[in-house]
Amino acid sequence: MTQLLLTDISKLYRISTQGEAFKKGTDMADAAMLESAYVYIVDDTIKAVGSMATLQPRAYRGAERIDCKGKLVLPGFVDSHTHLVFPKTREQEFVYRLKGMSYEEIARKGGGILNSAKSLAHISEEQLLEETIERAKEIMGFGTTTVEIKSGYGLTVESELKLLRVANALKEHVPLNIKTTFLGAHAIPANYKNDRQQYIDLVCDVMLPQVVDQNLAEFIDVFCDEGFFTVEETEYIIKKGAKYGLGAKIHANELAFSGGVQVGVKCNAISVDHLERSGPDEIEALVGSTTVPTLLPSVAYFLGIDYGPAREMMEAGLPVTLATDYNPGSSPGGSMPFVMSLACTHMNMLPEEALCASTLNGAWALRMSEKVGSIEPGKQADLVVTQPLDSFARIPYSYASNLIDRVMIKGEWV
Amino acid sequence: MTQLLLTDISKLYRISTQGEAFKKGTDMADAAMLESAYVYIVDDTIKAVGSMATLQPRAYRGAERIDCKGKLVLPGFVDSHTHLVFPKTREQEFVYRLKGMSYEEIARKGGGILNSAKSLAHISEEQLLEETIERAKEIMGFGTTTVEIKSGYGLTVESELKLLRVANALKEHVPLNIKTTFLGAHAIPANYKNDRQQYIDLVCDVMLPQVVDQNLAEFIDVFCDEGFFTVEETEYIIKKGAKYGLGAKIHANELAFSGGVQVGVKCNAISVDHLERSGPDEIEALVGSTTVPTLLPSVAYFLGIDYGPAREMMEAGLPVTLATDYNPGSSPGGSMPFVMSLACTHMNMLPEEALCASTLNGAWALRMSEKVGSIEPGKQADLVVTQPLDSFARIPYSYASNLIDRVMIKGEWV
Repeated sequence: MTQLLLTDISKLYRISTQGEAFKKGTDMADAAMLESAYVYIVDDTIKAVGSMATLQPRAYRGAERIDCKGKLVLPGFVDSHTHLVFPKTREQEFVYRLKGMSYEEIARKGGGILNSAKSLAHISEEQLLEETIERAKEIMGFGTTTVEIKSGYGLTVESELKLLRVANALKEHVPLNIKTTFLGAHAIPANYKNDRQQYIDLVCDVMLPQVVDQNLAEFIDVFCDEGFFTVEETEYIIKKGAKYGLGAKIHANELAFSGGVQVGVKCNAISVDHLERSGPDEIEALVGSTTVPTLLPSVAYFLGIDYGPAREMMEAGLPVTLATDYNPGSSPGGSMPFVMSLACTHMNMLPEEALCASTLNGAWALRMSEKVGSIEPGKQADLVVTQPLDSFARIPYSYASNLIDRVMIKGEWV
Repeated sequence: MTQLLLTDISKLYRISTQGEAFKKGTDMADAAMLESAYVYIVDDTIKAVGSMATLQPRAYRGAERIDCKGKLVLPGFVDSHTHLVFPKTREQEFVYRLKGMSYEEIARKGGGILNSAKSLAHISEEQLLEETIERAKEIMGFGTTTVEIKSGYGLTVESELKLLRVANALKEHVPLNIKTTFLGAHAIPANYKNDRQQYIDLVCDVMLPQVVDQNLAEFIDVFCDEGFFTVEETEYIIKKGAKYGLGAKIHANELAFSGGVQVGVKCNAISVDHLERSGPDEIEALVGSTTVPTLLPSVAYFLGIDYGPAREMMEAGLPVTLATDYNPGSSPGGSMPFVMSLACTHMNMLPEEALCASTLNGAWALRMSEKVGSIEPGKQADLVVTQPLDSFARIPYSYASNLIDRVMIKGEWV
């Protein structure tokens, strides 16, 4: 039995205290912050949390003490939407875009999802895993303790399975909590352009059964947007996934008012993600549903498109969630602190709201709230310890600095 | 005599090869990149640069070899506009702004320049130096090898001198190349509100002579903008500085079309900085002048205001320069790679253009082109060595990653 006692924490951001699965709207601003606090951990579990004034040292005699004077302690960040397994960065494509080339021209020159798919076919599973391990280590350094990883750069049976095998194999190499999502419906490959249904059948009737058989994914995802999959196709694919018990997470409304939000709600999707193109209709559809809106502000940052309407969503009482969308095309960065900074500076969220959206609400969007996302007795000991800081606001404020001191996953320092 | 030989550099970005003092317009896109290159350094000076194919190993027999296989080598970054010496971060003010408070309300609650001035009066010179050393180490980690530091958070004789003494004392604690600027005219202190000229006289007739006497600054700066100093006041102050031989650098057009650019040109200012509010008139004023336009995109990022028109300036043939404006109010970050990323994603500069703007052109804006800003024989050995990367575009593309491996200033690794 390993016992740890974090003492003299300047400010402990618990996020929830009553075991809430998520928080919505203005409740997100209450981070359940405790000043001058301790956290007691046994093995991989938080056993007690309290104020230093009530700490009974004798009760924790056998514990290793860790002095957190001046420091903040936060729940580990939950990044609920990434494409962490990918074959190659795509900076050349970025330069083409800066030179004014259209998406189509770039695709012809070798850009876009279809070309990541081409690279993927040529990379060995070992190399892909090795590169993913590096990326996983990088995001742990940013404070991410739980990550969702999608397939979608394969677009063939073999390559989609390869991506998901790597995402699952990663669990044996890094302590991150990992959830995987099958995104065979990320784009229509060029050779299926004239027979979309044939590719959709491949996804649903060939890939999906194997994904399930080999226990490679827990969720299913579809890119429901202009130029990708239609609302009808999305519903068809999501329902196929539901038959196998896969919860749905949908790429919706990045490029157009695609109806992706509405079809997500209709299908009881766990989350609809992106939402750069969302107005009152999309927000109305989400109100009263069980579907979580997940915003990915670094996509707007990197592509120079509009940011999702986080404030309006929160005012409508929705449980806004934030994630990085780490991927080589539209969001080549995996830093949750930077995402929180963008949420504050560009979507007018308060720092504590951004923190809730990046911890507890992210956990809910992965159906992991029982285990992670807040600092409460009984939950897994996934924590971020910062440098000495006055308050959490310093993290989104100091957008260029790394203010994280140590990261703990399952009771062990990373 | 210490000799170093950097070998097998995958791509060496020299920026200039003919000793140009700066580059302008579309010339900035040519980074004078050499593939498979070497750099030979003796003590603090670059002695030779060339292609591996022509390397004569015997000529460098006594040199320590450093294998740079797969890596890029860049000139150290020149950050030509910062307020690196400041007393306190101001994240509370950031939160007030997110809550919708006006600049005036925030000032009443304790925000703004005037309140940095209040904090400064209460911090000891030793503590101020200590905190500045930490910040200086941070920016060297980001690849900055030359930095300009302004006063301006003092606004009293004693405090302005204190700031400049700390900026100069920093030279003895870190290897950074440091240039200092006297910015007594950063704001009108509250107690001079009804007699602006009295404060201006204090700046010009009391502070300035002491700054010069004590050899504390090389440049003079004025915040010429709405709510700060007028065009006439700016000209008055700049001319006083010129009498003492101080070159002018002006804060212009951040908040309004203030005439700051035009007065800068009129006074032969070395640079006009900020320029978020610039149109055809400002660009026209700069064309044919010797005044450099310095853009500070992280201010636009952090405050959510418009970005300066970098592309239009370059198309007009101007030598655009980039800097961080690192300060606690409007740009609490000192990362030149992030500034270059913003320049690409939000001002449509090409990666190589952003690199030139952050090295050679920054050096010119500090009148240091003879010593730093490019990788040419005879210049000081200030270099950035990256992780293994395909091209420099990867740095602005991977906005959240730290891709810098090692930094060298004056021939020594930092």
